[in-house]
Amino acid sequence: MSVKKRVQALRQQMKKHNISAYLVPSTDPHQSEYVPECWQRRPWISGFTGSAGDVVVGATEAGLWTDGRYFLQAEDELKGSGIQLYKMGLPGVPQIDEYLARILKKGELLGVDPRTISLERSKGIEKALEPTGARLKCIDTNLVDEVWADRPSIPRDPIRLLPARYAGETVSSKLGRLRTEMKNRGAKAHLLTTLDSIAWLYNIRGNDVDFNPVAISYALIMEKKSLLFVETEKVPKSVAAKLRRHITIRPYGEIQTALKDLAKKKTKIWVDGASVSRWVIDMLKGCDLVMEMSPIRVMQAKKNDVQVAGMKAAHIRDGVAMVRFLHWLEREVTKGGLTEIRAADRLARFRSEEDLFQGLGFRTISGYAAHGAIIHYGPTPESDLPLRPKGIYLIDSGGQYLDGTTDITRTILLGPRATAEQQDRFTRVLKGHIALASVRFPAGILGGRLDTLARLPLWDAGLDYNHGTGHGVGAYLSVHEGPQNIGIRTVGKPLEPGNTLSNEPGFYKEGEYGMRIENLILVVEDKQRSKKGRSFLGFETITMCPIDTRLVDVRLLDEGERDWLNQYHKTVYKNLSGRLDLKDRAWLKKACRTL
Amino acid sequence: MSVKKRVQALRQQMKKHNISAYLVPSTDPHQSEYVPECWQRRPWISGFTGSAGDVVVGATEAGLWTDGRYFLQAEDELKGSGIQLYKMGLPGVPQIDEYLARILKKGELLGVDPRTISLERSKGIEKALEPTGARLKCIDTNLVDEVWADRPSIPRDPIRLLPARYAGETVSSKLGRLRTEMKNRGAKAHLLTTLDSIAWLYNIRGNDVDFNPVAISYALIMEKKSLLFVETEKVPKSVAAKLRRHITIRPYGEIQTALKDLAKKKTKIWVDGASVSRWVIDMLKGCDLVMEMSPIRVMQAKKNDVQVAGMKAAHIRDGVAMVRFLHWLEREVTKGGLTEIRAADRLARFRSEEDLFQGLGFRTISGYAAHGAIIHYGPTPESDLPLRPKGIYLIDSGGQYLDGTTDITRTILLGPRATAEQQDRFTRVLKGHIALASVRFPAGILGGRLDTLARLPLWDAGLDYNHGTGHGVGAYLSVHEGPQNIGIRTVGKPLEPGNTLSNEPGFYKEGEYGMRIENLILVVEDKQRSKKGRSFLGFETITMCPIDTRLVDVRLLDEGERDWLNQYHKTVYKNLSGRLDLKDRAWLKKACRTL
Repeated sequence: MSVKKRVQALRQQMKKHNISAYLVPSTDPHQSEYVPECWQRRPWISGFTGSAGDVVVGATEAGLWTDGRYFLQAEDELKGSGIQLYKMGLPGVPQIDEYLARILKKGELLGVDPRTISLERSKGIEKALEPTGARLKCIDTNLVDEVWADRPSIPRDPIRLLPARYAGETVSSKLGRLRTEMKNRGAKAHLLTTLDSIAWLYNIRGNDVDFNPVAISYALIMEKKSLLFVETEKVPKSVAAKLRRHITIRPYGEIQTALKDLAKKKTKIWVDGASVSRWVIDMLKGCDLVMEMSPIRVMQAKKNDVQVAGMKAAHIRDGVAMVRFLHWLEREVTKGGLTEIRAADRLARFRSEEDLFQGLGFRTISGYAAHGAIIHYGPTPESDLPLRPKGIYLIDSGGQYLDGTTDITRTILLGPRATAEQQDRFTRVLKGHIALASVRFPAGILGGRLDTLARLPLWDAGLDYNHGTGHGVGAYLSVHEGPQNIGIRTVGKPLEPGNTLSNEPGFYKEGEYGMRIENLILVVEDKQRSKKGRSFLGFETITMCPIDTRLVDVRLLDEGERDWLNQYHKTVYKNLSGRLDLKDRAWLKKACRTL
Repeated sequence: MSVKKRVQALRQQMKKHNISAYLVPSTDPHQSEYVPECWQRRPWISGFTGSAGDVVVGATEAGLWTDGRYFLQAEDELKGSGIQLYKMGLPGVPQIDEYLARILKKGELLGVDPRTISLERSKGIEKALEPTGARLKCIDTNLVDEVWADRPSIPRDPIRLLPARYAGETVSSKLGRLRTEMKNRGAKAHLLTTLDSIAWLYNIRGNDVDFNPVAISYALIMEKKSLLFVETEKVPKSVAAKLRRHITIRPYGEIQTALKDLAKKKTKIWVDGASVSRWVIDMLKGCDLVMEMSPIRVMQAKKNDVQVAGMKAAHIRDGVAMVRFLHWLEREVTKGGLTEIRAADRLARFRSEEDLFQGLGFRTISGYAAHGAIIHYGPTPESDLPLRPKGIYLIDSGGQYLDGTTDITRTILLGPRATAEQQDRFTRVLKGHIALASVRFPAGILGGRLDTLARLPLWDAGLDYNHGTGHGVGAYLSVHEGPQNIGIRTVGKPLEPGNTLSNEPGFYKEGEYGMRIENLILVVEDKQRSKKGRSFLGFETITMCPIDTRLVDVRLLDEGERDWLNQYHKTVYKNLSGRLDLKDRAWLKKACRTL
């Protein structure tokens, strides 16, 4: 069925429902970063497969809105579809809300599946439509699903329990802490819709979403009762038996009845305002709503001692895979035949040979030369460049292990020698990385206040990078985890001991090369600086893998920076050398030599 | 009339209006930082004279809410008034909204003068009252005024025109730029209620508010017409004649009719959501409101070339006054008889001897020893400490000149020698000051992203200061001017060439001493680092006054920092020496010697 035919079929459904336009967003009912196939309606209806983009289908015209990362890909994939591409952010291109306000006339309706749109977004659209007299109509059945005959069903992979030796805290302890927070806020119920928070709270893991060990579900916590809404056939008997000690398991679809029950009782319920869908809020009409960040997010971000030990252990094994890969890459690149995809695949295989490995944490960014400068680049068979023994290669990858999640970027010189400019840029990135890794700061501050430290050496040369410096990372959960971050805005929650974040300054020269140095860092208390009444914090770097010193101009490092780099390499060697064969160990020794 | 009697009289009025409680906020209809005497209702009704604090008068009880700066003063001033002090921020102390929700019963009314409360604040109270069934009632006459027999009238000092040689831009040019912004936003009218923005737009100045050269007024700008609402007797004929070229002058009280007219016509009007009063919004009911920051705020913050030259010239004259003061202080302190107030008064006299001087820009903070650690300290006859030739003295002061506004803090060693700890702390503050003064950064960033730079040397020693690093400063206008700032949050608008801000890191040791180094800095383009498509910016320090090097431990400065300090002192000497008598010049030469 061609995209044109799909759109035609959708228009038939639109007529039945009496709507003039239909909005197909990228998101799913759980606002997942990666959308399970069964909910990939926007790619299906438009043919555009990028991760971000919304489609509007009108009676005669249709449009796709996406951002700069995807302009080329979208142009290509939309060819012949009759769907017009709207390049977001370019001058003269209407925003989707402006477009809707223009095409819809008084009394006309814009349809949307309220499960696929956040409350905030739906309010934004309603505000934009207000002056036109058109209205947003939430339709409980998804119109794309009605015409998508061979739509995959919801994944039915079994869920697993995460053993205490990895979770570090029992479900009942977590529920106890959550209920205290609920009580403080006067809430009688708390709804969780984001899958990683549900997995964390109930110590369960699943395979329903790419790269994320989570299960499609809802969780509803009340004063006495905790519920998990999940396709029951996904819960093996042995798992169900253990879960039932604290949790009532109900079919996924019954969340609707449960929410309506709460509404009937006008329950005071806490929902996470930033991630909740319009559908949930409509179901809860009548409730007294607390619309604040779920307390689970802060709890989940503060790893306990068991998780911290697990994250460190996972990073040592991950470092072993990285070192084997880097050594292999150095040998192979001169032989020819290597490409971006083959290198990424080989690294995945090295990882898979490590204990407790469960899969990758995200799609590997494997960018050679100019591809390294495309920040969200992922090689496709069409783009896949051969790696040659010259220039620079960037690889950003990570693994999911039962005891932790990793995320590391290394920039590798494939040629015999770097240019002076490359060394200058890389050394500035390294100086920024070290500045952040070494900073000490008072407890209570937002991570955004540290972002600038990683940029100063680049700013000093009139350079910068166009992304944040650090994101939170889950423990055998999502590689992107809030609320803590080290971004360009002071948002989220204050840094706390036990938070794990990335430290990833970079530099990108369009059309030539990209550089990034990414390690994960753990927030720790700085006992030396902490005084009565005021605690000071710092970071401990937990990623274990050498940084390519052939790209470093040592003269640009001050003494403290050189000490940091030497000490880091000493620690890497100490942690990894015993786990490597003789040849890899010799390679690592050289890579970690003192400067 | 005692405070008790005043409160009783107010309760009589409350009965007449059928309200159970009355809220008396500190603010005035223009949200001024300093409130003219005629609107100082909260000090009058309570006896508490601090700058921040709200009063609630109930049928039988009354309370004042204020923050930590004023706990002692409020306790003292409220004695015998029957008004209870609620110390904001202390554990167990109810917030004012909680208190209101507790004392008011279903159907009862809380009265407020809607001119004295911001829209946002009034919404907050309404939300707090919602569950109780009580309501907020806006009463157009102020109930305190009804019982305040000898209330001063609105100041009637004449307004003046600011000549083009200081303003640097004509009213018609400013109006043209504003109307372009209004057009872009689709607004047919724009209301200004903040006095400094009105003064800026119309190139007028007044004397109605302490330390701020502004006139009590409203401004209403429409597509063809611009109005100034001001007590007409305040406008001298010659001023009126010139103003009338672009502006229609109407009596202050007629703003009400004007707003109602706009409401009748359902005009699309732009009002500054953050500063507008509840009263204005009630008057505009029916209008299509644009509630965004006034575009004037960004225009006003970006000083033009004439203003930049004026600010620099004012800072040179201000520096002359400061140097004469510092030299005088050094001589006088050993003689005895000096106090915090006498020193501040003498500095004001030195300033008043400079050309174009118009008055002080704010109440001088003159804090000796332990008083220096009280961040908002202003000496009173009761607190006034004698200055002795030992320890540390902090003075934060500024002047209003026709061509600019200054704001400077110097920390001065009064004794023969500083302790090692004092030198260490002061040098860390200086290192932070220099880091901010020297940073280069890409255009488009918010100033909040630079705040951390000024703190790092203190953080490194487990120390910090409990205030932002920089605020915007007006040009012969308010010493606190938004939207740009260098605070701990990334808020406001991006830094632009022509912005003037303070750079004022500090360190405060409670009970012992306070230190702060404050210079004003001007945002300038960094031509060397700017490239096609990406502009880089930096700061130029415009305050001209030596920093006390007896408090500096030179060994803690790196080469770049020492160079900065030496270069700064060289520039200070160059700019000031020709304007000083022989003795002051010799003193300055010594103070500015190369380290």
